[in-house]
Amino acid sequence: MSAARAVRVAVGGTFQPLHDGHKLLLRTAYEIDGDVDIGLTSDEMARSARIRDVEPYAVRERRLREWIENKLGKRPNVMKLEDPYGTALTEDYDYIVVSPETFPVAVKINELRKEKGRKPIAIVRVDYVLAEDGKPISSTRIAGGEIDTHGNLLRKDEHEGSGRDQ
Amino acid sequence: MSAARAVRVAVGGTFQPLHDGHKLLLRTAYEIDGDVDIGLTSDEMARSARIRDVEPYAVRERRLREWIENKLGKRPNVMKLEDPYGTALTEDYDYIVVSPETFPVAVKINELRKEKGRKPIAIVRVDYVLAEDGKPISSTRIAGGEIDTHGNLLRKDEHEGSGRDQ
Repeated sequence: MSAARAVRVAVGGTFQPLHDGHKLLLRTAYEIDGDVDIGLTSDEMARSARIRDVEPYAVRERRLREWIENKLGKRPNVMKLEDPYGTALTEDYDYIVVSPETFPVAVKINELRKEKGRKPIAIVRVDYVLAEDGKPISSTRIAGGEIDTHGNLLRKDEHEGSGRDQ
Repeated sequence: MSAARAVRVAVGGTFQPLHDGHKLLLRTAYEIDGDVDIGLTSDEMARSARIRDVEPYAVRERRLREWIENKLGKRPNVMKLEDPYGTALTEDYDYIVVSPETFPVAVKINELRKEKGRKPIAIVRVDYVLAEDGKPISSTRIAGGEIDTHGNLLRKDEHEGSGRDQ
């Protein structure tokens, strides 16, 4: 680094249930070795985008904190997101870490920053983590009882020959 | 995009032996639908980082070209890398596609670009492709005779119960 200023990293999501895709996203954000700000969607925001139920902010925040503290050994800095952009429009982050699903949001953020004469943020697009069937792990699939948080198929009887052991 | 300028994509490596991890990297780069520049390490650079033997640049380039032309139906633009950064410090790429192994190089590239007042490049971090045993496919493991380029275990007798069918 040329200046003493720490590298700043932004990452965001609803993080429920916390699955292997989220974990890769978070690991990658902390791998950059900077100050990571985690935007966690408010209940209003999380629920407006989904039909399925979403646990309250406080519950999601606690689980997220516990995982980061226990598995990554970091003290997370979690902030509430009331819109898809959060502080990414106004703060000079160096990196924003996104999934393929939220990659367009990061592109939009840079477009809006440009309009305001702000520098673009380097986007880090982390790949999907694939479930046992080769399709991405997603919260929707987990909530639907199709797979667990690690991508194991749960309805073995309906998917003949789809198990990892076959 | 606001201008008519084509999207520019950078990807790089030694690409020997060309394995499923490299193929995912290349597929992802071309999936972005822009002009892809492939940096291929010079013999000096490739050999300085490895104990094992590396085939000459011309051989690696030919194999890389053949695979891209035959499998992706694209005309590859291959350029020699004499250092880990190549043209990524001076050219305004929109994307750089990397593996988890080379992710820190992309972070470093953006750091160096920033020092020169250049815009950051969006990093697309493609995950490892896993071998049959759940560990990443790597050129080192292939060169060591442990797995083939698709990640199949080759020393079945030494790894009891490690096959996909067990």
